[in-house]
Amino acid sequence: MSSAGKHFVSDPKTLVKNSLCGLAIANPHLSFDEQQKVTYTKDLAELRTKQVTLFCGGGSGHEPAHAGFVGHGMLTAAVSGHVFASPTSSQVLSCLRRVYSEEHGTLVVIKNYTGDILNFGRAVERFKSERVNHGKGMPKVETVVVDDDVGVVNPNDDAEGGVGRRGLAATVLVYKLAGAQAAAGASLAEVKAVAEYAIANSFTIGCALNAASVPGQGMPRSLNDNEIEIGMGIHNEPGFETKELQPADILVPGLVKHIINSSPFKKSSDAVTKRRAVLLVNNLGATSNLEMGLVTKLAADSCKAQGIDAVRVFSGTYMTGLAMPGASITLLMLPDDDTRCADLLSLVDAPAFCPGWINHARVNDAGSTDESAQGPTIQFKPESDSTWEKVISEAYASVVEEEPQVTLLDQLMGDGDCGQVLLSGATGIRDAAQQTRLPLNDPASALAQISSIVEDAMGGTSGIIYCLFLDGLAQQLRALNIKDNSSLTPQLWGKAMLGALDTLYQYTTARPGHRTLIDALEPFASVLSRTGNLNAALDAADKGAASTTQMQAKRGRAVYVQSKDSVADAGAVGLVAVLKGVVRALTQ
Amino acid sequence: MSSAGKHFVSDPKTLVKNSLCGLAIANPHLSFDEQQKVTYTKDLAELRTKQVTLFCGGGSGHEPAHAGFVGHGMLTAAVSGHVFASPTSSQVLSCLRRVYSEEHGTLVVIKNYTGDILNFGRAVERFKSERVNHGKGMPKVETVVVDDDVGVVNPNDDAEGGVGRRGLAATVLVYKLAGAQAAAGASLAEVKAVAEYAIANSFTIGCALNAASVPGQGMPRSLNDNEIEIGMGIHNEPGFETKELQPADILVPGLVKHIINSSPFKKSSDAVTKRRAVLLVNNLGATSNLEMGLVTKLAADSCKAQGIDAVRVFSGTYMTGLAMPGASITLLMLPDDDTRCADLLSLVDAPAFCPGWINHARVNDAGSTDESAQGPTIQFKPESDSTWEKVISEAYASVVEEEPQVTLLDQLMGDGDCGQVLLSGATGIRDAAQQTRLPLNDPASALAQISSIVEDAMGGTSGIIYCLFLDGLAQQLRALNIKDNSSLTPQLWGKAMLGALDTLYQYTTARPGHRTLIDALEPFASVLSRTGNLNAALDAADKGAASTTQMQAKRGRAVYVQSKDSVADAGAVGLVAVLKGVVRALTQ
Repeated sequence: MSSAGKHFVSDPKTLVKNSLCGLAIANPHLSFDEQQKVTYTKDLAELRTKQVTLFCGGGSGHEPAHAGFVGHGMLTAAVSGHVFASPTSSQVLSCLRRVYSEEHGTLVVIKNYTGDILNFGRAVERFKSERVNHGKGMPKVETVVVDDDVGVVNPNDDAEGGVGRRGLAATVLVYKLAGAQAAAGASLAEVKAVAEYAIANSFTIGCALNAASVPGQGMPRSLNDNEIEIGMGIHNEPGFETKELQPADILVPGLVKHIINSSPFKKSSDAVTKRRAVLLVNNLGATSNLEMGLVTKLAADSCKAQGIDAVRVFSGTYMTGLAMPGASITLLMLPDDDTRCADLLSLVDAPAFCPGWINHARVNDAGSTDESAQGPTIQFKPESDSTWEKVISEAYASVVEEEPQVTLLDQLMGDGDCGQVLLSGATGIRDAAQQTRLPLNDPASALAQISSIVEDAMGGTSGIIYCLFLDGLAQQLRALNIKDNSSLTPQLWGKAMLGALDTLYQYTTARPGHRTLIDALEPFASVLSRTGNLNAALDAADKGAASTTQMQAKRGRAVYVQSKDSVADAGAVGLVAVLKGVVRALTQ
Repeated sequence: MSSAGKHFVSDPKTLVKNSLCGLAIANPHLSFDEQQKVTYTKDLAELRTKQVTLFCGGGSGHEPAHAGFVGHGMLTAAVSGHVFASPTSSQVLSCLRRVYSEEHGTLVVIKNYTGDILNFGRAVERFKSERVNHGKGMPKVETVVVDDDVGVVNPNDDAEGGVGRRGLAATVLVYKLAGAQAAAGASLAEVKAVAEYAIANSFTIGCALNAASVPGQGMPRSLNDNEIEIGMGIHNEPGFETKELQPADILVPGLVKHIINSSPFKKSSDAVTKRRAVLLVNNLGATSNLEMGLVTKLAADSCKAQGIDAVRVFSGTYMTGLAMPGASITLLMLPDDDTRCADLLSLVDAPAFCPGWINHARVNDAGSTDESAQGPTIQFKPESDSTWEKVISEAYASVVEEEPQVTLLDQLMGDGDCGQVLLSGATGIRDAAQQTRLPLNDPASALAQISSIVEDAMGGTSGIIYCLFLDGLAQQLRALNIKDNSSLTPQLWGKAMLGALDTLYQYTTARPGHRTLIDALEPFASVLSRTGNLNAALDAADKGAASTTQMQAKRGRAVYVQSKDSVADAGAVGLVAVLKGVVRALTQ
């Protein structure tokens, strides 16, 4: 029995380098310096003559952060350390030298972890020293530190500050805003101001169903099956609370409330009245996208319920803790001032050209087109017709009669429900006929209507096979321009049935010899079309059904069943029961 | 102990609907028909007057497929069934009615699974019937069936065809090509032809480290920790082979070879000579993006080694089997004919506006800018200076002397390496001075150089703290325009140290009272700056170090350690050892 934490086997020492190589291979706008593990836009040399440049970085294992956000409109470069370990100051310095814009300056975005702060900090100081030592003057480099986590703060004990709040998924929003601002030609001071706004007004809380296994190291610890952890970090740092796994519609609102009740949120003063926000729902790595959709919906609903107007919602995989099963919720609160708010939203909305960011597409909202999904109202006139009624009644009687045999055969080689399913369909049609709900004077419409009844009554694969045949039959009659029963001969029915088989064959690969109802249906249609003789056709169908006894199942109900006895195919025998009733009605 | 397969707890009956709601919330270009689970572009009404429309769908659990690919340039709509179950024909019919372009027609993309074939097929037939029945004539609807899987084919036994190959990740490439072709204004026949080309020339093989847990159902089965399955389906269908987990650099080339050796690949005749391909590496759901980068690199390398020219490489999460840990590799082979190849690539390259597709950004490739990451060559003239040499020598001697005491203190409250790390730094500096590798006549340059030596020799957090301080000190001397030793007084050193502390404080929140070396450093700088008296400053540093005995650790080495004894902070005592040597050298 396997647990979480299997990996593609590789040398942990080269994993990060190779992974970033892969990123650059799949994203041709990226270059990668393997030595320093710096990912950068290929047109960097050109870009830094045009705008403020900016970069981030940190330990690996948070992909797509950070290198997946390198591209026009976001980061100019990213520098990567080993898994969950800061890059060295030499790596960061190498990145800074590469990225630095002589003319416009450079913003360094740092996540608030001790290692990052020190290594990025030292790189900036080294860069300053080397510039000054070489008479180039103090460089235009600014740093910002992202600390959006509200999961480590004890509201009663944050006066001291401690090592502070960690940088989590809001880091990506910081790139987004600062990157868009830089791309728009803003000054370094303006770019930094936007980053600082985002930092001061972003709040993130994560939850995880388990820790993440680290390649080469495995699982650091493991939650019980009925547990969830709140406030978990992206490096497997334990959360502030481990509790019983709640239903998502309780859990997610609880996370949103935790943000709103956190002291950093309460202290922020830019969104006091209008409480507009950008909501970012982040997959921590191994949550199915199906579940992410649910968490997103619940987070958006919770915001609404809590009086937060989530004017933009992003959902995706932005900042992971390797393959951690969990999600985080980030609120970036927008200023009450409408002009400032609109300015910030224009930065949120500006397209970014990197693999990690999901751009919102804009289309014209044409309003509801819900009507278009409705079919035309069925406009038949229910009619009675004694021949049709007799056919339906006899077919029903025949199915009732043969059902036990069909069921037995299906129990021997199949899943045992074939007889009942067939009976259910026959009953549905009989009831409709008895209640005069079928347009029996218009055979094509009648068949289309019967097909719908069969789908509802039978369901499953065999139901749809019948439906497709009946649909095809109706289409054949239309094509033959048959508008009433008077012009229909048995031979014409036979030809229509052959045409309907062609329709059916578009959607199933079952053919005569595969041990399905086709083994009865095709001989019937064939003989009827050739001879117009109903009894001869029925005889052919009967022989066809009997011949399935010797067949190895290629399709249908018996494919998955070990044969114990040589018996006929239940589906073929069931169809013969229907045909027997039809022929009896028409020939007696 | 938890295993794979935990989920956010929710009602499996509403999960899909809520998840797709979440998708539409996060992607404002989407509308969602909750009743029929149809996701469509908001401007559908307008779109279908302009171009061929196209949709796909199928069971849920494959997100972002299919609804995540709805947007301009890809799908017009997607219809979703329950998890791993086809939508009903009524759902598909509703989607078709909604999407159908009266003028240009509609392409229906179907994955080759029995349920999908039948339900999509029946919907198309019902649509035809209802159109014809209402006198609108036969609608312009075409279907294509994607069957890119080469994991189910036994090369020796595919003459019969069976249920055929399954539709896997190439389905997304089919959308991409057909969607781009449709958006470019092509006819239905042209759009269908492109889809058929992609289907005939796409080949996918997946591998999985485990099955995926299904919400509400759990794990259907589980691999052992040392196993991998090859050819696993996206609905937990077992692969054709379970084998021992190989290193990725053997596994991935094996997958590429499996594709190339498969009979469907060998039968394809469009890429016989030039063997150009689009390579798509797909996360099956729960593989870390870090590992996905590795798999992508290895897949691209393997293509090259196998003579496949992967002219486009995509890597991401396209078609999942819920949170399945695994990846699939798809090759879409491009035609030898250069014009046709270029046409197809233009469709691959055309931007698509949906959350699931990762557009390749295009930037000017300015060529290598590798030089820019190199720092300026260090251009100091190594000089000897008797005072500096004495300072360095005495500081080294003092550290040697005090190292056992520092080590003991760190063993009592810390991780025990403080003394050795400090000694290592002191040794590095002494060696450099003895070998005349320091520009001692230029104090700022000397300090910058010493800082680099300290980083290499010490490493870790304490190393960087020293480095940042030394960097700051060098910057202060530059700012004071001090170019040689002659103008340096003890008081000036004190002032420079205070300035250097400001630099350090930008990157650490450690302050006096937190039980770190700051408790010795700040008093030293302070007193020296005020008095110019080296012995008084040393005395203050010594007192500061001693005072740490009473401090509760707020930062640094002792934060994580339970205090057993009241001892001084090793870092502070170690710094005093350094300062003692320095002062001794300057005052004796």
